[in-house]
Amino acid sequence: MATDVKFESLSPSEWFRRNKELAGFANPSRALYQAVRELIENALDATETFGIHPFIKAYIKYAERDNWLSIYVEDNGIGIPKDEIPNVFGRVFYSSKYKVKQHRGIFGLGAKMVILYAQSTTNKPITVISAQQGSDKVYRFDIMIDTLRNEPLIKYQEEWDNKYKWHGTAVHVVMEGDWLKAKHRVEEYIKRVAMVAPYAEIHVKEPDGAVIDIERVTLTLPIPPKEGLPHPKSVDIEAVKQLISRNGDSPVSEFMVENFDGVGEETAMNFLQSIGIDPGRNIKELNTDEITHLVTKMREYNEWRRPRADWLSPVGTELLEQGIRKTLEPEAVFATTRKPSSYSGNPFIVEAAVAWGGKIEPSDRPIIYRFANKVPLLYDEGNDVVRHVVDEVDWSLYKVKFPAPLVVVVHICSTKIPYASAGKEAIADVPEIESEVRLAIREVARRLRVYLSRKEKEKEAMMRYAMFTMFSREVASSIASILGIKEDQVLNKLKKVISRKIKYLEAIEEVEGDGEQQQQQGQA
Amino acid sequence: MATDVKFESLSPSEWFRRNKELAGFANPSRALYQAVRELIENALDATETFGIHPFIKAYIKYAERDNWLSIYVEDNGIGIPKDEIPNVFGRVFYSSKYKVKQHRGIFGLGAKMVILYAQSTTNKPITVISAQQGSDKVYRFDIMIDTLRNEPLIKYQEEWDNKYKWHGTAVHVVMEGDWLKAKHRVEEYIKRVAMVAPYAEIHVKEPDGAVIDIERVTLTLPIPPKEGLPHPKSVDIEAVKQLISRNGDSPVSEFMVENFDGVGEETAMNFLQSIGIDPGRNIKELNTDEITHLVTKMREYNEWRRPRADWLSPVGTELLEQGIRKTLEPEAVFATTRKPSSYSGNPFIVEAAVAWGGKIEPSDRPIIYRFANKVPLLYDEGNDVVRHVVDEVDWSLYKVKFPAPLVVVVHICSTKIPYASAGKEAIADVPEIESEVRLAIREVARRLRVYLSRKEKEKEAMMRYAMFTMFSREVASSIASILGIKEDQVLNKLKKVISRKIKYLEAIEEVEGDGEQQQQQGQA
Repeated sequence: MATDVKFESLSPSEWFRRNKELAGFANPSRALYQAVRELIENALDATETFGIHPFIKAYIKYAERDNWLSIYVEDNGIGIPKDEIPNVFGRVFYSSKYKVKQHRGIFGLGAKMVILYAQSTTNKPITVISAQQGSDKVYRFDIMIDTLRNEPLIKYQEEWDNKYKWHGTAVHVVMEGDWLKAKHRVEEYIKRVAMVAPYAEIHVKEPDGAVIDIERVTLTLPIPPKEGLPHPKSVDIEAVKQLISRNGDSPVSEFMVENFDGVGEETAMNFLQSIGIDPGRNIKELNTDEITHLVTKMREYNEWRRPRADWLSPVGTELLEQGIRKTLEPEAVFATTRKPSSYSGNPFIVEAAVAWGGKIEPSDRPIIYRFANKVPLLYDEGNDVVRHVVDEVDWSLYKVKFPAPLVVVVHICSTKIPYASAGKEAIADVPEIESEVRLAIREVARRLRVYLSRKEKEKEAMMRYAMFTMFSREVASSIASILGIKEDQVLNKLKKVISRKIKYLEAIEEVEGDGEQQQQQGQA
Repeated sequence: MATDVKFESLSPSEWFRRNKELAGFANPSRALYQAVRELIENALDATETFGIHPFIKAYIKYAERDNWLSIYVEDNGIGIPKDEIPNVFGRVFYSSKYKVKQHRGIFGLGAKMVILYAQSTTNKPITVISAQQGSDKVYRFDIMIDTLRNEPLIKYQEEWDNKYKWHGTAVHVVMEGDWLKAKHRVEEYIKRVAMVAPYAEIHVKEPDGAVIDIERVTLTLPIPPKEGLPHPKSVDIEAVKQLISRNGDSPVSEFMVENFDGVGEETAMNFLQSIGIDPGRNIKELNTDEITHLVTKMREYNEWRRPRADWLSPVGTELLEQGIRKTLEPEAVFATTRKPSSYSGNPFIVEAAVAWGGKIEPSDRPIIYRFANKVPLLYDEGNDVVRHVVDEVDWSLYKVKFPAPLVVVVHICSTKIPYASAGKEAIADVPEIESEVRLAIREVARRLRVYLSRKEKEKEAMMRYAMFTMFSREVASSIASILGIKEDQVLNKLKKVISRKIKYLEAIEEVEGDGEQQQQQGQA
């Protein structure tokens, strides 16, 4: 009588192949955009993160069938060890990015999704060419994924002498795509990458022959992030159990100091005594309830040092302003880099900027540029914490009347960006991040208000003086008759006073404009 | 010289444990909401889908620590086979829902995420009690997940005689949660479930003692969906290669008829001849390029029958209106169930309704109720195709002036809902779905316009007659003097005419109101 229901198991790659929308591969145009994006982000992660100035080539061409495109992306990064190449591209959930450290990629999923989408639509393997720094050989692998087993299938393999001491990775893929619909997004994406990575050189060739040449505007590289330890407030019981089974053969206090960020010896002792666990007991001896107790209290305790920000690599106020000036050509820009903060033990830094006027077109609400770990986010804006915060701001408090030429730029960097989907397009509403975004925007908005109200006041003052000048003859004649002196004498004096006032105002404008810039640079 | 980068492999459960935000478990309040939701959706899938009237109990209580909650959800469904229980709950990517058929669940992920979240926050196993229909025994398993291996860990196991011939599944879990913040969402969720499943009985006990009792308002159950075959337009090369390696030892034409929906023998022959593949060749003999050619053309070909809708189970116009009347108590409601349509070979049906007035509070834009496979979607509205369409509608064309008491309800059912994230809260912008949603909303909006303009006209007519009545004495006196008859006589006749007109108008209003209802029921 039991109803017949069949159960089945899917491999990770088969599951993602079937649910590719979740990783952003929803349709041919979005998939093309996503593929370009994932490959460029891998290229940036392989260079900038290791102190190399990124030099990236991306060639997109039409391929042998309608709606097929060939994508080639090459970087000058650190390369991938020969033995790791097949797994890095051909095994879902295999990556170097599952670390406490800021990367553009965090799911270790992008490249695999590109392969899965390619082989599902064109039945062609991806070609990977790579050499590590100092390698004598260059390696090539043509790879597909055995989705039933979640294993790489090596279709072709070759190696040759690395005569030119090249290092980096090049990926070539043929997949279904819709270039006409994706073109605008891809171009916008490249432009925005340049905004937060003004030290990168990117050359893009489009199928229709168009070329985008992003030159670097600075040689300054942000300090690469370090790899870190989890913070006691960010862990869960499962993670601690894993740490114990791997590293756990020491007194509890020692275990805590060695395995977590922000825990000194004294803090560990104080904490353990306060929750009634003997610091000298071996961590392995703790039973289930004691581990539960330990971790629950670790997450509640407020005396840990803040999570360290060495694992983060913000753009910096100066580079951010340079990037915005170059990309948007505004009349004024005000940027800020906030101090490190944390949510559930994950360190993060919010940077924000407002750009005003110049080549920015007026619009009915602020135009938003969102970035997460230097990745531009183009889709799903309505779902993003930044949009929510910007919509709540009462811009009239900051002298902004819409339509206005206002751009708001927000960059969030963290060892763990709380994306709302694996397609990495929107950041979830995390209260701590929301609050930092709000503070950052208010800070730059206040500076915009100062700027705008000064402009307004100057305009008013000029109007007043203009009016005064218009009526100066009448004023002069009244004063002359009261004081019994000559009208012309009074008029000349009045004119001198007025012209001095106007010069003074113009001078102030210049000096204060410079001051504003210096102040911002001082903060960078 | 090579930079030292370490690579590692994660199991699916470890990956999802670390990235739980992707499945909706972003913070304690959202996680609590998500857990209740996943368990109730499994309960509905285990009943309604198999022709059983759902009777679901959900008890939420405070547990032994602050912020710990105990959740118990029991259904009267078909139960789970004993041997499958551990895997269904303890192995990510193991499910009965990876089929071409309409389910609330489609990722087979929800229950596993609940366990992962529970064990990560409270270190406690989940308890599952289940009996299939007609089973002599009831089985209990206490399960955790070994996240390194993605395997169930059975912590306790028990069975007893099924004296009361009970069947169904009960799940008990203790997890971290924030009831105060989640309460509103959970209640709203239950209310909306009732709106599209008026045949379900749901009893909820909340931690603070409050009780929600959803009684069924009808015994009518929608026709359960059947399990189907993939449509040739919805497959990709990888999926066809898998079919070939499983079922492929027959002529290509036979293979196509047997493995795909919408393919008759004649269509298969015509199609294969048109693309230059001999229908009589064994499918196994096709080489890589030929398979690519076959599948590429399958996806382009337009002569297939439409995908069948037997695999779908819409709510139906009548049940939808009943549900809305019961839940919102509006003055008027107009619903429609569109004909089946398809996107990339996946069949889908859009249902829409507008509800007006009554107990609906006026607001500045339409209030939207979104459903996908009968699942209410509460979060991420800004990111949903329905919000985009509703925002584009020019409501003034439909006589709606905001603020207005207007609710728009949209239900999309499909064998494959294109969710934008694994948290299942927003539907991606798929052009075919967008277009059907637009047509459905226009259809009901037009009926709303007819209703509103009739109300308006009646109001105007009443005003005219009221004016006429006011001046009836003057009119009567003029007519009397012209015709040389008594004024009172004319006045009496005039009054009769007016009162008859008013009665007629009132009668029309009633009759047409009924007619509207009958018309809608006729369509159901």
